[in-house]
Amino acid sequence: MVMNPEEEVLDLASRIQPVDESSAQAARERHSRLTKPPGSLGRLEDLGVRLAGIARRCPPPVPERPHVVVAAGDHGVHARGVSPWPQEVTAAMVAGFCAGKAAVNALAGIVGAAVTVLDVGVRSDLQPHPRLRSARVRPGTDDLSEKPAMSREEAAKAVLAGAGIARELIDSGVDLLITGDMGIANTTPAACLIAAFTGRPAEEVTGRGTGIDDDTWKRKVSVVSQALSLHSPDPSDPIGVLASVGGLEHAALAGLILASAASRIPVVLDGVNADAAALVAHALAPFAVGYTIAGHLSVEPGAAAALARLGLQPLVDLDMRLGEGTGALLAVPIIRSAAAALKDMATFEEAGIQR
Amino acid sequence: MVMNPEEEVLDLASRIQPVDESSAQAARERHSRLTKPPGSLGRLEDLGVRLAGIARRCPPPVPERPHVVVAAGDHGVHARGVSPWPQEVTAAMVAGFCAGKAAVNALAGIVGAAVTVLDVGVRSDLQPHPRLRSARVRPGTDDLSEKPAMSREEAAKAVLAGAGIARELIDSGVDLLITGDMGIANTTPAACLIAAFTGRPAEEVTGRGTGIDDDTWKRKVSVVSQALSLHSPDPSDPIGVLASVGGLEHAALAGLILASAASRIPVVLDGVNADAAALVAHALAPFAVGYTIAGHLSVEPGAAAALARLGLQPLVDLDMRLGEGTGALLAVPIIRSAAAALKDMATFEEAGIQR
Repeated sequence: MVMNPEEEVLDLASRIQPVDESSAQAARERHSRLTKPPGSLGRLEDLGVRLAGIARRCPPPVPERPHVVVAAGDHGVHARGVSPWPQEVTAAMVAGFCAGKAAVNALAGIVGAAVTVLDVGVRSDLQPHPRLRSARVRPGTDDLSEKPAMSREEAAKAVLAGAGIARELIDSGVDLLITGDMGIANTTPAACLIAAFTGRPAEEVTGRGTGIDDDTWKRKVSVVSQALSLHSPDPSDPIGVLASVGGLEHAALAGLILASAASRIPVVLDGVNADAAALVAHALAPFAVGYTIAGHLSVEPGAAAALARLGLQPLVDLDMRLGEGTGALLAVPIIRSAAAALKDMATFEEAGIQR
Repeated sequence: MVMNPEEEVLDLASRIQPVDESSAQAARERHSRLTKPPGSLGRLEDLGVRLAGIARRCPPPVPERPHVVVAAGDHGVHARGVSPWPQEVTAAMVAGFCAGKAAVNALAGIVGAAVTVLDVGVRSDLQPHPRLRSARVRPGTDDLSEKPAMSREEAAKAVLAGAGIARELIDSGVDLLITGDMGIANTTPAACLIAAFTGRPAEEVTGRGTGIDDDTWKRKVSVVSQALSLHSPDPSDPIGVLASVGGLEHAALAGLILASAASRIPVVLDGVNADAAALVAHALAPFAVGYTIAGHLSVEPGAAAALARLGLQPLVDLDMRLGEGTGALLAVPIIRSAAAALKDMATFEEAGIQR
């Protein structure tokens, strides 16, 4: 059967299974026997339990090949003056990621993660590069405050582009996916998506992005409000929400999350753009959330709202708001540590300690 | 001149210089030119600034040879029933650290840190092992609720034992020291130390350690109160405070911190026992705090009280309370990332981006 892009997305979503509760339970039980006071590793224990459920075995494997996918796109709403940065900075930063000289590269190097940039919607021309994957659906979105950001088909295609690269990386041995994003003005569609899926008002989920003054923030809030009024996005129609108020990189990250979940590989959320994408993935496939790990808490207020809706607790909270995958990368060693504690520690019985 | 142990400690403390403000300022200035919105790496930027000040250069080096020193000791106050664990568990856990099967080993493996156990006061016999350094000052302390835990000379000797191993490791190329601790009942002297240096009452700084019930907690609080009333520890006499209400491992960790600071090597604090030791180091040499990094926030209430007094913000907060160095180890990649951002990122000028 030949499916159209939207049908393909729904098909992908339908193939996501819940995490395995019996492996999670085995991890809980194992933690109670390891040589430490019960519960003393705190949230590292909960994380190990989640990793066991995702991997369907206890102990879960320690991720050895993490890979960041930085989904990049431009935004028609940039014309409304919601960011102090010129739109061309998106392409310039993509060039920086390819050159290995951006924050994401520096932090990826520390944890041994590879970096791939996925162009799903940059407006400017980009030089080919081994780190750059071209899957441009369109050169930036339309201004979501005036019309739909993109068509439903374009939204679905961007989801599939993210899913496609995730599958390809997983097939090549990647065992931990990390979301990254680049797109000047992309915290505006992120705020719209978060408002649409959480029901919170624009002023509660709109932040200062890369750093804007009070006047720009007020304008940004009114743009988000205007978009929500214009489109009345329906959270039960996630592709429709993406098409009307989303960004191409949010769509791609939603696809990355869905494909990771379908392949039972954990995926680490970075900041507010990834959190918005996770809301889309959750709306398409509630079980997908079981495979996602909130890497950090972005300063952007929408991040906390999205994570609360998803029931996820971030691992790191260092007042960061850069994106690119930087916050998620800091969580990689914590994730590895959670798996290693289950794998490498002796039990009281093995250690000959009476309790 | 031959100095007695206490004079040696004071001499060590007197050699600690402030961190270098001009290198810290160079890091602040460099952060403003790197390809990211100013401040968007949040506390990672502040940490990079601190590392530059410690290293006296910008960019600071990325730590490549982290080493955990797990200071181990026993406690006479154990007889008061402040812990549910038998005292022999201290030695059994030391055997586990040597065998490489404890939590500290699992987490150290993830970040490539070596582990050394420093016996400054375990009560039971220990089997020799390449990972175990014997510097036992005495086989456990006396019951601090009835008499001084140890003599001033013993306290000073334990400080020097920690300083000695730190110097030796630094001389061999270790570039990041990590505090670890093991000692059944050691959160009781930690609470006493924190109360002595912060002035807070026993019930505010006494926690549930490895996990105790309400009755045991009340007993523990009354033991701490009793010790404070008996000794009236004087915070302006840190060796006296250690001798009356401290533990041998707290003394050793204070020495580790002082020697790291004297050698201008950063030292990562783990949980409440390290935080208590840092208060001792701070009282001996206020500048030492500039070289310490709070790895994580322990669940123990004394930890937050101690860090507030020291003006340190913890990097990780995952409800952990195990000790051994586990929380501090999770911070190592964050510390490396902070240095790498300053070292590896391009400036806007280098990237040809106009602002």
